[in-house]
Amino acid sequence: MNEPFALGIDIGGTNSAFGLVNRRGEIIVKSSFPTKGHATVEDYIVAMKAAILPVIDDNGGKGNVIGVGIGAPSGNFYTGEIVDAPNMPWPGVIPMARLVSEGLGLKATLTNDANAAAIGEMMYGTAKGLKDFILVTLGTGVGSGFVANGQLIYGHDGFAGELGHVIAVREGRMCNCGRKGCLETYASATGIVATAEEWLDTHTDGSLLRTHKGEITSKQIHEAALQGDKMALDIFAYTGKILGQTLADAVAITSPAAIIFFGGLAKSGDLLLGHVQRHMEENLLHLYRNKVAFLRSALPDADAAILGASALVW
Amino acid sequence: MNEPFALGIDIGGTNSAFGLVNRRGEIIVKSSFPTKGHATVEDYIVAMKAAILPVIDDNGGKGNVIGVGIGAPSGNFYTGEIVDAPNMPWPGVIPMARLVSEGLGLKATLTNDANAAAIGEMMYGTAKGLKDFILVTLGTGVGSGFVANGQLIYGHDGFAGELGHVIAVREGRMCNCGRKGCLETYASATGIVATAEEWLDTHTDGSLLRTHKGEITSKQIHEAALQGDKMALDIFAYTGKILGQTLADAVAITSPAAIIFFGGLAKSGDLLLGHVQRHMEENLLHLYRNKVAFLRSALPDADAAILGASALVW
Repeated sequence: MNEPFALGIDIGGTNSAFGLVNRRGEIIVKSSFPTKGHATVEDYIVAMKAAILPVIDDNGGKGNVIGVGIGAPSGNFYTGEIVDAPNMPWPGVIPMARLVSEGLGLKATLTNDANAAAIGEMMYGTAKGLKDFILVTLGTGVGSGFVANGQLIYGHDGFAGELGHVIAVREGRMCNCGRKGCLETYASATGIVATAEEWLDTHTDGSLLRTHKGEITSKQIHEAALQGDKMALDIFAYTGKILGQTLADAVAITSPAAIIFFGGLAKSGDLLLGHVQRHMEENLLHLYRNKVAFLRSALPDADAAILGASALVW
Repeated sequence: MNEPFALGIDIGGTNSAFGLVNRRGEIIVKSSFPTKGHATVEDYIVAMKAAILPVIDDNGGKGNVIGVGIGAPSGNFYTGEIVDAPNMPWPGVIPMARLVSEGLGLKATLTNDANAAAIGEMMYGTAKGLKDFILVTLGTGVGSGFVANGQLIYGHDGFAGELGHVIAVREGRMCNCGRKGCLETYASATGIVATAEEWLDTHTDGSLLRTHKGEITSKQIHEAALQGDKMALDIFAYTGKILGQTLADAVAITSPAAIIFFGGLAKSGDLLLGHVQRHMEENLLHLYRNKVAFLRSALPDADAAILGASALVW
């Protein structure tokens, strides 16, 4: 007899990763299949069944699977829906938890990807034992999960924790959401690229980035900074200031013991987070100073999403 | 045999109000004594005993009092201390819960005044039955209590919920806390007075407020607005915009079902709150629009503070 598993599914804009996870947070088996390329969400569910069901059968069958946890952008814990996710192939409201549950014949729970990551960190990662922390994902966009009193803050409607859409700069950059100055238009991979392209237009000084103008990637900015390129270093400093100021305001609301960073841009390490921490501390009310730990996720990116999703089940 | 009571004490900068409250939130008896005018906090405790102990004796004695709940500015739930409260007569860290407990010979719990008000609203007031809401006190300063999942957010250190010290205007007005642009430098009684005094200097148009220049009160601004004075009306509109923008950002973090307003400035009603609500809605991410109820506390000011403090006991 096998031990019981949770099935964790992380639905990204491009790929969907999944894994069977035991209660101790060990991923027994994992794989993925494309999110893109299906005409309808029903076709996507067919592809999901084809990818996942054989893996379940090879590992003791459905009887061993306690349930399914799903992390997805704009996912709602209370309704199980994905709502108007800008990076998903399907527009509008997708009742994903129900579709997955019917498709796989297993109980399914869904939350947004950053909330899932926060739960994963709390159960298996850097946040183990913390009752009050903020998880910030710095990827294509900015996501967040706020934990207070040992519980994720879902809000009355399941949509709490959108730090990426706090207005960091009044009348600032246009955001995909239709408003101006959202944090994620600055403090994400997309945001630092936008800063670089802007600065190459408005500044005249030389930079390694000039050769990539018009098609700069966040990786190139990182590499230029590592080579000591002043503009690239200044871009990280500027981004860190905006993120640090915004985090100082968030701390005044939930007073966390730690902020945990996750995602591609978090890997830029002190190039970015050093500035973030300094500007956050400078902008903190005295009550909060020198108390908020700055931590990086210790879980591998792909695993964290699967672990977080699976943690919804227990 | 009398029914059991909680003793609620609201320690304000000028006066301390207290009352004996039963489990249904009925204040059986209430009174007050001065906070100011005592050389030391020990002298204050002596005055407290003189004021409170006879009232307890008249109502069945200490045996009938389950415990003491205290609301105080900059009060910390975890430590029972008042920490660097700018409006208190005593500087530094005051172990108030312990002093009260020793003084009265009763178990005492303390939290900050806005948190106490939030608990009072949740148990006995407008927030009854709400699991996710924000209480905002608009008085001399701006206080707040955030409730999520039916629990007050204290944060890891007991200092969460300082909405008044979120930076509403970058590089804005100097705050007592030493930083610039804090919400409470604009959206409090002190804040609207500062706006009025500033505008009388920088604007040339006539206003009923000109006759009070140099000693304007928030009440005068309210009265001038009621008489249709354009500058006074514009001051409320300006204040409402800043508060509305800041609340929109707070909603993106905790997604509350309601925001409940309490305190002197909240009584300006639609003169202020109409603008607040409009600007909050305009600045909300689409997910949150037309979902957040705007409510005013239904508890009388003096009673709410006592009720909130007493509610800590149960």
